Amino acid sequence: MMGGNDQQAYDRGTSLFSPDGRIYQVEYAREAVSRGAPSVGVRTADGVVFVAMSRASSTLMEAESIEKLHKLDDHLGTASAGHVADARQLIDLARRQSQGNRLRYGEPVGVETLTKFITDHIQENTQRGGTRPYGAALLIGGIEDGEPCLFAADPSGTPNEWKATVIGGGRKEIQSHLEEEWTEDLSLSAGIELGVAALAAHDDEFVPGDLAVATITEADGYRTVPGDDVADAFEAAGLTTEDADASDAEDADDDDADTADDEE
Amino acid sequence: MMGGNDQQAYDRGTSLFSPDGRIYQVEYAREAVSRGAPSVGVRTADGVVFVAMSRASSTLMEAESIEKLHKLDDHLGTASAGHVADARQLIDLARRQSQGNRLRYGEPVGVETLTKFITDHIQENTQRGGTRPYGAALLIGGIEDGEPCLFAADPSGTPNEWKATVIGGGRKEIQSHLEEEWTEDLSLSAGIELGVAALAAHDDEFVPGDLAVATITEADGYRTVPGDDVADAFEAAGLTTEDADASDAEDADDDDADTADDEE
Amino acid sequence: MMGGNDQQAYDRGTSLFSPDGRIYQVEYAREAVSRGAPSVGVRTADGVVFVAMSRASSTLMEAESIEKLHKLDDHLGTASAGHVADARQLIDLARRQSQGNRLRYGEPVGVETLTKFITDHIQENTQRGGTRPYGAALLIGGIEDGEPCLFAADPSGTPNEWKATVIGGGRKEIQSHLEEEWTEDLSLSAGIELGVAALAAHDDEFVPGDLAVATITEADGYRTVPGDDVADAFEAAGLTTEDADASDAEDADDDDADTADDEE
Amino acid sequence: MMGGNDQQAYDRGTSLFSPDGRIYQVEYAREAVSRGAPSVGVRTADGVVFVAMSRASSTLMEAESIEKLHKLDDHLGTASAGHVADARQLIDLARRQSQGNRLRYGEPVGVETLTKFITDHIQENTQRGGTRPYGAALLIGGIEDGEPCLFAADPSGTPNEWKATVIGGGRKEIQSHLEEEWTEDLSLSAGIELGVAALAAHDDEFVPGDLAVATITEADGYRTVPGDDVADAFEAAGLTTEDADASDAEDADDDDADTADDEE
Amino acid sequence: MMGGNDQQAYDRGTSLFSPDGRIYQVEYAREAVSRGAPSVGVRTADGVVFVAMSRASSTLMEAESIEKLHKLDDHLGTASAGHVADARQLIDLARRQSQGNRLRYGEPVGVETLTKFITDHIQENTQRGGTRPYGAALLIGGIEDGEPCLFAADPSGTPNEWKATVIGGGRKEIQSHLEEEWTEDLSLSAGIELGVAALAAHDDEFVPGDLAVATITEADGYRTVPGDDVADAFEAAGLTTEDADASDAEDADDDDADTADDEE
Amino acid sequence: MMGGNDQQAYDRGTSLFSPDGRIYQVEYAREAVSRGAPSVGVRTADGVVFVAMSRASSTLMEAESIEKLHKLDDHLGTASAGHVADARQLIDLARRQSQGNRLRYGEPVGVETLTKFITDHIQENTQRGGTRPYGAALLIGGIEDGEPCLFAADPSGTPNEWKATVIGGGRKEIQSHLEEEWTEDLSLSAGIELGVAALAAHDDEFVPGDLAVATITEADGYRTVPGDDVADAFEAAGLTTEDADASDAEDADDDDADTADDEE
Amino acid sequence: MMGGNDQQAYDRGTSLFSPDGRIYQVEYAREAVSRGAPSVGVRTADGVVFVAMSRASSTLMEAESIEKLHKLDDHLGTASAGHVADARQLIDLARRQSQGNRLRYGEPVGVETLTKFITDHIQENTQRGGTRPYGAALLIGGIEDGEPCLFAADPSGTPNEWKATVIGGGRKEIQSHLEEEWTEDLSLSAGIELGVAALAAHDDEFVPGDLAVATITEADGYRTVPGDDVADAFEAAGLTTEDADASDAEDADDDDADTADDEE
Repeated sequence: MMGGNDQQAYDRGTSLFSPDGRIYQVEYAREAVSRGAPSVGVRTADGVVFVAMSRASSTLMEAESIEKLHKLDDHLGTASAGHVADARQLIDLARRQSQGNRLRYGEPVGVETLTKFITDHIQENTQRGGTRPYGAALLIGGIEDGEPCLFAADPSGTPNEWKATVIGGGRKEIQSHLEEEWTEDLSLSAGIELGVAALAAHDDEFVPGDLAVATITEADGYRTVPGDDVADAFEAAGLTTEDADASDAEDADDDDADTADDEE
Repeated sequence: MMGGNDQQAYDRGTSLFSPDGRIYQVEYAREAVSRGAPSVGVRTADGVVFVAMSRASSTLMEAESIEKLHKLDDHLGTASAGHVADARQLIDLARRQSQGNRLRYGEPVGVETLTKFITDHIQENTQRGGTRPYGAALLIGGIEDGEPCLFAADPSGTPNEWKATVIGGGRKEIQSHLEEEWTEDLSLSAGIELGVAALAAHDDEFVPGDLAVATITEADGYRTVPGDDVADAFEAAGLTTEDADASDAEDADDDDADTADDEE
Repeated sequence: MMGGNDQQAYDRGTSLFSPDGRIYQVEYAREAVSRGAPSVGVRTADGVVFVAMSRASSTLMEAESIEKLHKLDDHLGTASAGHVADARQLIDLARRQSQGNRLRYGEPVGVETLTKFITDHIQENTQRGGTRPYGAALLIGGIEDGEPCLFAADPSGTPNEWKATVIGGGRKEIQSHLEEEWTEDLSLSAGIELGVAALAAHDDEFVPGDLAVATITEADGYRTVPGDDVADAFEAAGLTTEDADASDAEDADDDDADTADDEE
Repeated sequence: MMGGNDQQAYDRGTSLFSPDGRIYQVEYAREAVSRGAPSVGVRTADGVVFVAMSRASSTLMEAESIEKLHKLDDHLGTASAGHVADARQLIDLARRQSQGNRLRYGEPVGVETLTKFITDHIQENTQRGGTRPYGAALLIGGIEDGEPCLFAADPSGTPNEWKATVIGGGRKEIQSHLEEEWTEDLSLSAGIELGVAALAAHDDEFVPGDLAVATITEADGYRTVPGDDVADAFEAAGLTTEDADASDAEDADDDDADTADDEE
Repeated sequence: MMGGNDQQAYDRGTSLFSPDGRIYQVEYAREAVSRGAPSVGVRTADGVVFVAMSRASSTLMEAESIEKLHKLDDHLGTASAGHVADARQLIDLARRQSQGNRLRYGEPVGVETLTKFITDHIQENTQRGGTRPYGAALLIGGIEDGEPCLFAADPSGTPNEWKATVIGGGRKEIQSHLEEEWTEDLSLSAGIELGVAALAAHDDEFVPGDLAVATITEADGYRTVPGDDVADAFEAAGLTTEDADASDAEDADDDDADTADDEE
Repeated sequence: MMGGNDQQAYDRGTSLFSPDGRIYQVEYAREAVSRGAPSVGVRTADGVVFVAMSRASSTLMEAESIEKLHKLDDHLGTASAGHVADARQLIDLARRQSQGNRLRYGEPVGVETLTKFITDHIQENTQRGGTRPYGAALLIGGIEDGEPCLFAADPSGTPNEWKATVIGGGRKEIQSHLEEEWTEDLSLSAGIELGVAALAAHDDEFVPGDLAVATITEADGYRTVPGDDVADAFEAAGLTTEDADASDAEDADDDDADTADDEE
Repeated sequence: MMGGNDQQAYDRGTSLFSPDGRIYQVEYAREAVSRGAPSVGVRTADGVVFVAMSRASSTLMEAESIEKLHKLDDHLGTASAGHVADARQLIDLARRQSQGNRLRYGEPVGVETLTKFITDHIQENTQRGGTRPYGAALLIGGIEDGEPCLFAADPSGTPNEWKATVIGGGRKEIQSHLEEEWTEDLSLSAGIELGVAALAAHDDEFVPGDLAVATITEADGYRTVPGDDVADAFEAAGLTTEDADASDAEDADDDDADTADDEE
């Protein structure tokens, strides 16, 4: 993505600016996120939708153990992309903070408050030496004061609120699809379809079983969407599994068993 | 901005002077600020005005989540430019200090006092190894003893008081415009118009919705200026949105979705 | 496995990302695991099976002292691969955590909970400077809520749940064999045979005495499988020791006594 | 000022001597001081005089916020030159020490005692690694036992007592002027005139408003000299503002708004 | 033993893996052990035997002060090879742990338990930066539950149990001799003879006085074998001192008095 | 003084020996001392004499503020050479130790005891990384048990007792003069003359006012010698100020005002 | 003594092994010892003898202040060689340990026990980064259980017991002389003569006054041998001072006064 000898002079640590004011290690951490499978978040009129690509590298891996989507509290959840072990640290931190908020104040932490708590922590790893940035991004969504809301946290520690967005690989095509198709009045199921279709805009060779989907609504809180409903959305999005199946199986055969499973 | 092999010998750490007495990492941090969108501060007879460019990189991003302007206390606010996550750390520090002052002394912290507390903290990150400077600048404004006052804090940790100034990209043109047009007896709304016009002196392809505006007055304290009032100032400054709209939409289309949103 | 000058610019520490978002030290730690002898884990209908290659480098070394398989609690065990001394540290940590859980809560720690405790610890060694990652991988298996389950922890700190998998050398061939032959309804003894046969898919020059086998079932908890039963499984898997014996002895003769015994 | 490859081998840290016994980082810190605007101190029969060049880089900057002169105690003050943020840290330290002395002993700290407290602190930053020297120099003046006295502290941490001296840019010409013109029996106002004239020996393109002047006398303690009195001294020193005014305005126009304001 | 530019990129610290998953500093520490004189351990039916080459570099050095064999507890001893001062630190640690165990539990520490305590300590020095591995190996032997047992600890921190083994120089030839001649039913004196003969397989130019021999039996605990008994074993092993004597003396004459005595 | 590429490989830290067993940073610190003005110590039958070159770099500098000679206790004093700020740290340490000794034991600290306390502190800065050696040397003299005695402490931390010696620039010529002229039975005033003459052996272009002289005797303790007495010794030593005066004034004219005053 | 580019890759720290298992910084510290004047220790039937070369670099230096020999306790002493300030630290440590032992146990510390306490401390400086080894060696001698005994401690931290040995420069010739002439039944005065003669085997251009001699016997404890007795031993050893005197004086004349006195 970048190049030249000059860059190498400034990209070996988080405690260095380059002459043009960049922090290369943060940009490289973004590359680590781009190497991961994408996770989409969609804010709908009825709640927040997460659709994550969660394809196992082997037929013997339990796909649900890949864990791209996580409940944080009754009405609060997160989707991750990038370096799995890094994401887990951030998710653990988010969970502890959510639980602590409930204990201290008797109520759930706000979506924005929690996001900024996480991004402040991420930022600290981009300024001090002796550590590297987190190679992971998070979407944090929930219901706050009855309204669905969706935030993203990136490896620089910048929080932003979104109507719909994507983290991980294929960001350009997926975000474009979301920008074209998102409307304020989407139903929850339309949101799921949009998420599935957006992922397909980047790479349509997947089957419903490769997806993890969750919703957060006022009525039902955080809820994992069952496989059948995912398959329905898959069809509704006009996707077919036939070619995908074939190519997926082929992929599995070609798969080098030594491939790392740490970028999802 | 600078060049040559000699520079590279001295620009890898905050704990190094170059032979000509410069601290390059601080200069690079200034470059990080220059890469961000500009924020203007104007002291008027009636109060302090902040006008910040706050344009979202995607139509799906909630522009208000970019957060260039922040209330610190009833009569105290700040505008930031540069690396977003770095600025957030400084703003958090300013807020905690403001709150602590209220708790300890039962009164708001002074604008100059708060600015110097922040710049002392910034300076420490420019002298010790193992960290990098903050890649952000702040304007801090408020009412002190009934008088509006405005300070700026830069990445070297130098505090200065201003009648009107700008931090972030396009400093040269914007500051020139301010120097030519600022007068002691500006009304608050004239101050807003001046801020909008000054930003346009550098880059006039923006719409009112790309701006965040806030005022701090004795009567009303810190107050976010509503979109309609911003649009009025926009028109009063003689700007039209037609070409800007077109080019803005075009920009959005050309936008590489991988572009970082951490420099605002 | 990788090459080029650029790589060398980014592979000297855990606190560095490469421009393409990789953490080379973690990838090199995976190489350390690949240099070790393989350990297979198989989830069967009746329990979890571990089959580990545990061949001594000298006829005078006590093969059981190589210790690839470890009981962690009554219904909880682990198999390791890679750098022996590193694995020992992780196993000690797992044991202390298991015992602590029993003391605090009066019940055994869950398989997934324990795995994630270990992987969180592993991740920390991949982010901070001044240390290297662990050059070891673990399989953690047990009975949880009456069901067998099997997890793997790799040097990046990524946890994954598996039906059957392998850590250590020859991963590609062994995992392929497992993918082809594993079925949901395997009996425990069929699981042992599958493990033995899978190891032979990579390298069939071993004798039953080179293997360590353990099972974890609801009825019997963690149990080391006696040599005779291993020999039965060896035969049932269609393997013969004749050629292997010869070549093994030959190997021992050729063995350079200076060879390190720390990668098993 | 210096050059050659050999120098670069020894100039990257405060914890290194060069083969000829120099500490280059300290010499570079002196360069940082030389880049700043000069501050003159003059001991007169009636008290100590500080005259500092305090010219704002923009007409909108409040010149008094540049703060080259600081009261430390009733009869104790300081003038700074060099890196502004560094100087502020030293001045804060001097203030805290002055206040502490009053609290502990009920009397003001001595001028020499305070200077040596500051220089000991400066020295520590020239010997340990992980930090850089202070890029600032101070003049410390006051009345001690009824007598005016004046000390200077440089970036090496060396304290010296002076009849009259200068820190910052143009040292050579200004110090020469002082050496030629200073006499033991100067009146306070003659001391101010000498200070103004000495500054003009280096660069005479300034107006009275570009100067900050303070005096410390037994009778009045630390006292900021009003602008009118500064203008009188300016005229008494035989200076006219006409050409200066013009060139100053021209300078302001040419001023690159990106120029740092941290060296004053 | 190894070579090439690539290796040098990864061999400067314990906190680095090489691309092929090696920790070079640990391998170099093994070289330090190989530079030392060998120590043999033999498990016999009656107890554990240690035979160590303990030749002084000068006729005026007290050979017994070389101290290759150490009693740790009544039925527990150790033999060392490699960097003498490093080995001493490990032996001190083992002694303190043995004494602590007796104090806390009223019984001697187990051989395996003690070995693993030592190897865990050794491993820590192979993972964190800021230190080097121990350049020493230990044999730890004793009587546990009435049975003789023998462990080895190498610079990687790997523990292994052995019937008979050697640490230090000449490992290949000595271990081969042990593999060919060791039997389960050796008497204690046969074990001593085997140890002496095994050392001679690598280098037979030594006299009985160059050897240190100790045994650990249930009946007598740790016992240093007297010189006469060593001489008997020497003869029983079919060795003669004549040529050896001559060459030894010659060696002593040729000895460079500047030679270090720290690798034994 | 030294050269070559090999040297540069070992001269960047106090925690490094060169292959020939040298610690270059200590040798460079000696160079720093050699760059300073010389201080002579002479032990006479009646007491210890210090004669220091203490020439101000500007006619406006208070020469006595250069402070080469310091009283430490009633019968104890010190003379310094080299880096002024470093010397001050050592002198502060010596004073605190002298005072502490009086407080704890009710009597002055011994000359040798104090010297070794200081040299032990100096040595520590030559062994640990992260710091540089002290670039200063001290003479410590006093009356102990009624006898005058004189010690020197150099940057390596070596203490030595002397009949008469010199620290700082021109050591070779000055020490030679002392060796030729010193006798056991010198009177105090003869000692002063010897010190003055010895300094002139290296550089005779100075005036009495450039010298600082102090004596320590049983009768009078530490005593600064008045200027008139210094002038008498100057004449007694056969020196004239005429040429010196001229050249000194000339020197002052040529003096670059930017010259550092930290090496005296 | 060593050379080549490869060596330079591994010789910059105590926390590094070279590929052939060497710790170069320890070897360089030995070079520092070899640069020093030699100290001989001889165990005789009546006690331990120390003979040290202790020649002053100037006729005005008090030779006894060079202090190569030190009493540690009534029957315990030490002789040093190498870097003087480093040796002093070790000797201080030995003294504190000796005194502490007396306080705690009411009896003197054993010679071997004390030596190992010192060498353990020395070893720690050879393993951790951030420090260098001690550039000094010690002989430690005393009467223990009525028997004279003599140990040496070298920069690696290896302790050895000796009948007679030498530390410092000229080790090869001096040790050879000791090996040829030492016998078990030496009288104390014969031991002194042997020590003097051994030193002369390396360099015979010295006078009795250049030597420091001490003995430790059961009857008299630690005792400094008077100059007359040293002169007797000098003559008894067949040495004459005539030529030596001349050359010594000549040496003194040639002596560069800038020469360091820290290697003795």
